[in-house]
Amino acid sequence: MDGREFRKLGHELIDWVADYRERVERLPVMSPVKPGEIRARFPSEPPQAGGELARALARLDVDVVRGITHWNHPSFFAYFPSNTSYASILADVVASGLGVQGMSWQTSPAATEVEEVVMDWLRQMVGLSDAWTGVVHDTASTATLCALLCAREKASGFSQNGAGLQGLEAPLVVYASKEGHSSIEKAALLAGFGKDNLRLVETDEEHALRVDRLEAEVAADRAQGRVPCALVAAIGTTGTTAVDPLAAMAALAKQHGLWLHVDAALAGTAMVLPECRPLWRGVEEADSLVFNPHKWMGVGFDYCAYYVRDPEHLVRVMSTNPSYLKTAQDGAVKNYRDWHIPLGRRFRALKLWFYLLDVGVLGLQARIRRDLANAQWLKEQVDAAAEWERMAPVPLQTVCLRHVPKALLGDEAALTRHNLELARRVNESGAAYLTPSLLKGRQMIRVSIGAESTERRHVEALWRALQQAAL
Amino acid sequence: MDGREFRKLGHELIDWVADYRERVERLPVMSPVKPGEIRARFPSEPPQAGGELARALARLDVDVVRGITHWNHPSFFAYFPSNTSYASILADVVASGLGVQGMSWQTSPAATEVEEVVMDWLRQMVGLSDAWTGVVHDTASTATLCALLCAREKASGFSQNGAGLQGLEAPLVVYASKEGHSSIEKAALLAGFGKDNLRLVETDEEHALRVDRLEAEVAADRAQGRVPCALVAAIGTTGTTAVDPLAAMAALAKQHGLWLHVDAALAGTAMVLPECRPLWRGVEEADSLVFNPHKWMGVGFDYCAYYVRDPEHLVRVMSTNPSYLKTAQDGAVKNYRDWHIPLGRRFRALKLWFYLLDVGVLGLQARIRRDLANAQWLKEQVDAAAEWERMAPVPLQTVCLRHVPKALLGDEAALTRHNLELARRVNESGAAYLTPSLLKGRQMIRVSIGAESTERRHVEALWRALQQAAL
Repeated sequence: MDGREFRKLGHELIDWVADYRERVERLPVMSPVKPGEIRARFPSEPPQAGGELARALARLDVDVVRGITHWNHPSFFAYFPSNTSYASILADVVASGLGVQGMSWQTSPAATEVEEVVMDWLRQMVGLSDAWTGVVHDTASTATLCALLCAREKASGFSQNGAGLQGLEAPLVVYASKEGHSSIEKAALLAGFGKDNLRLVETDEEHALRVDRLEAEVAADRAQGRVPCALVAAIGTTGTTAVDPLAAMAALAKQHGLWLHVDAALAGTAMVLPECRPLWRGVEEADSLVFNPHKWMGVGFDYCAYYVRDPEHLVRVMSTNPSYLKTAQDGAVKNYRDWHIPLGRRFRALKLWFYLLDVGVLGLQARIRRDLANAQWLKEQVDAAAEWERMAPVPLQTVCLRHVPKALLGDEAALTRHNLELARRVNESGAAYLTPSLLKGRQMIRVSIGAESTERRHVEALWRALQQAAL
Repeated sequence: MDGREFRKLGHELIDWVADYRERVERLPVMSPVKPGEIRARFPSEPPQAGGELARALARLDVDVVRGITHWNHPSFFAYFPSNTSYASILADVVASGLGVQGMSWQTSPAATEVEEVVMDWLRQMVGLSDAWTGVVHDTASTATLCALLCAREKASGFSQNGAGLQGLEAPLVVYASKEGHSSIEKAALLAGFGKDNLRLVETDEEHALRVDRLEAEVAADRAQGRVPCALVAAIGTTGTTAVDPLAAMAALAKQHGLWLHVDAALAGTAMVLPECRPLWRGVEEADSLVFNPHKWMGVGFDYCAYYVRDPEHLVRVMSTNPSYLKTAQDGAVKNYRDWHIPLGRRFRALKLWFYLLDVGVLGLQARIRRDLANAQWLKEQVDAAAEWERMAPVPLQTVCLRHVPKALLGDEAALTRHNLELARRVNESGAAYLTPSLLKGRQMIRVSIGAESTERRHVEALWRALQQAAL
């Protein structure tokens, strides 16, 4: 393809994207295709001759879009909002157009320095002190793995430079809430701690970690000769956005020398609002912190913000320094390749930069407040409605609910079937997309509000659709 | 930003990208900026009001492009080619425009199924049997870490579900070539094996792993009660693209029950040519294999292809299955979230699909043959030139050379200074970008050929520039 064809197809695709965004509200939120349906549209062998792209682009709607579940649909209420703003699409055009690989400062100084700038802006935006330094990771799963690896190496006196975890006399133990994200368990397992050395601590009636239980677990481990190593606090659990008591956990972490990692993957965005920051009181005592601007904020996936208080420790755990990666500027600059697991890195900082230039901090604050208000509105409807039950507090933008018809009262098995069926009906109708989930064994439906295009009317329509489906 | 502004700015940026690509040859390859120079152009606080994007885009050339080292410049000969073709830029427009998060099949069936299709095309293109199944990872560093985690769990009988590496009686050991990539050591350390349990095996005069030494190391470990666990073979080392003797290593791996992982990060692309496949004879005996279409091939960074023979084992090591991620289709479909470390994933398969539609397998083969021929041409020049030394065989597209003026003959310290200075001169001239590197303690200059836009004339110009700089 030459530049002329690229311009032509590029303009067409920009318009195609805008057309898509403008009509997405009329598409079914969850893709209606059956397993294998998209695959069957493709030949089983690669094309031998080229020159086929323009023809394929003309068929994108049938070959691809029918198989898309629309995360940027205003009635997307599943999982978490994953907003890809127009501004961050434009940033990806620039990042891919430049084709930058920013593993070291020298391999594109702008990729490193724009990241330094915008990660510091983001730090200020969520009210963190300048003791924190940020770096872009892909996802919170990876960042949490890095946090546990840093904890492991700190507690073990850099065992990786010796016999590794295989040489430790007393096992290291990791603690987190039972309602914490599955990535915490995954990280603990991949980091080699083993499930036997992972304590998922009981939560209270608001689904936040119980510090008394945590304290008891730590004491029991100590008594049995194990070494408490790391503690993960959830600021906004995945199930219900429950908020762990961070200040109390920080005190306990300090007392026992635990690495404290804060998982605020979704809720970090809320901290752009000063009125939300009491939710993570104590955060300044943590060692590491992850939150995802690629969730609720508006920075297209992937863009995970990982903040640490001791970047030198992170680099000691993550760095390799072969001769072919040495450059004249080493020591005077950041080489972000040493700040995470991958070596290579895209120029993702452009996405946050473009997004903030477009909406400004004030615009972002207004949108987050809109989403919080929409969640409170839905909460009030559920609380006021007969035969509907709210399953958890609503500190942020997620409302957990279920329908409890009188006839099924007390019959948990029937209530599970009924609410799964209810969610299935709504999802398959295409009108909205929700996540059925279990909360301490009870079936609920999670309504996660915060797509960029979600206005009050969409939440109202969802509430009508739920009531309709329950009839 | 509304759709109208997005169309306007989007069209402008598509043209800006094409303009950039058309003029990149006239820019200095390595960015000339000093540390801090780009950062200083940015305000230290985030923008409060929005509406600033159009103004910033007009300043991209001064604020950003001056700080870019141009990986898609025809005179980029450093590190490895990282080709971002026009077609894959267009794919990123679509992927970002759709804003897909394809963690599960249901969260966008097309993201999963197009990936299944193109990863199977790619398998066929490099001549692998249908015993292999592929998945897109971000980078080879991450894929190699996954491989070592899979090896660890296989050898330890899924220790992660028990006491982890902390509970093993005999330490597990990992083997690789001394000339292997730094990511192998990083992966072994992060996976918890510990440096004491990593054997970097001596190489022969062609810089390929010596099987006799490997065999001796394995035997010594066994004799001392350690458990040989994993072996990484480099098909194309980073330093010189040396090719480890895969068939012999595979036989040894089989004999000792070692997990065999093949790192063909760069060289995998060469296997699109049937005449190159003898280089990885034995590959069918491996357990896992990584190569990066985002390197030499033309698929924009990041796109790492990870192939495994036992996807069920990979999923057992990597999966988590909380209730909020369960869907009706589980069991009938692939949920790629369980095939790697991150949970979320972009729709990267579009990049390979668009690229292959554009160039076809035949077009790609022609380009790879061009690059191999360019490397052979440079090799011949070096071999024929007085006072120049070729440091390694040239099985692929990398030529390792140094200048050895008569006056410095035998003085390694002086030769090191001289060749570092030579590389610095060329790099700082902006005419070309090279990587100085050490090979078994001797300073060399790596010339890595294979940018999409690199024609013979650019290699000729480089050779002139090197000779000029040596005067």
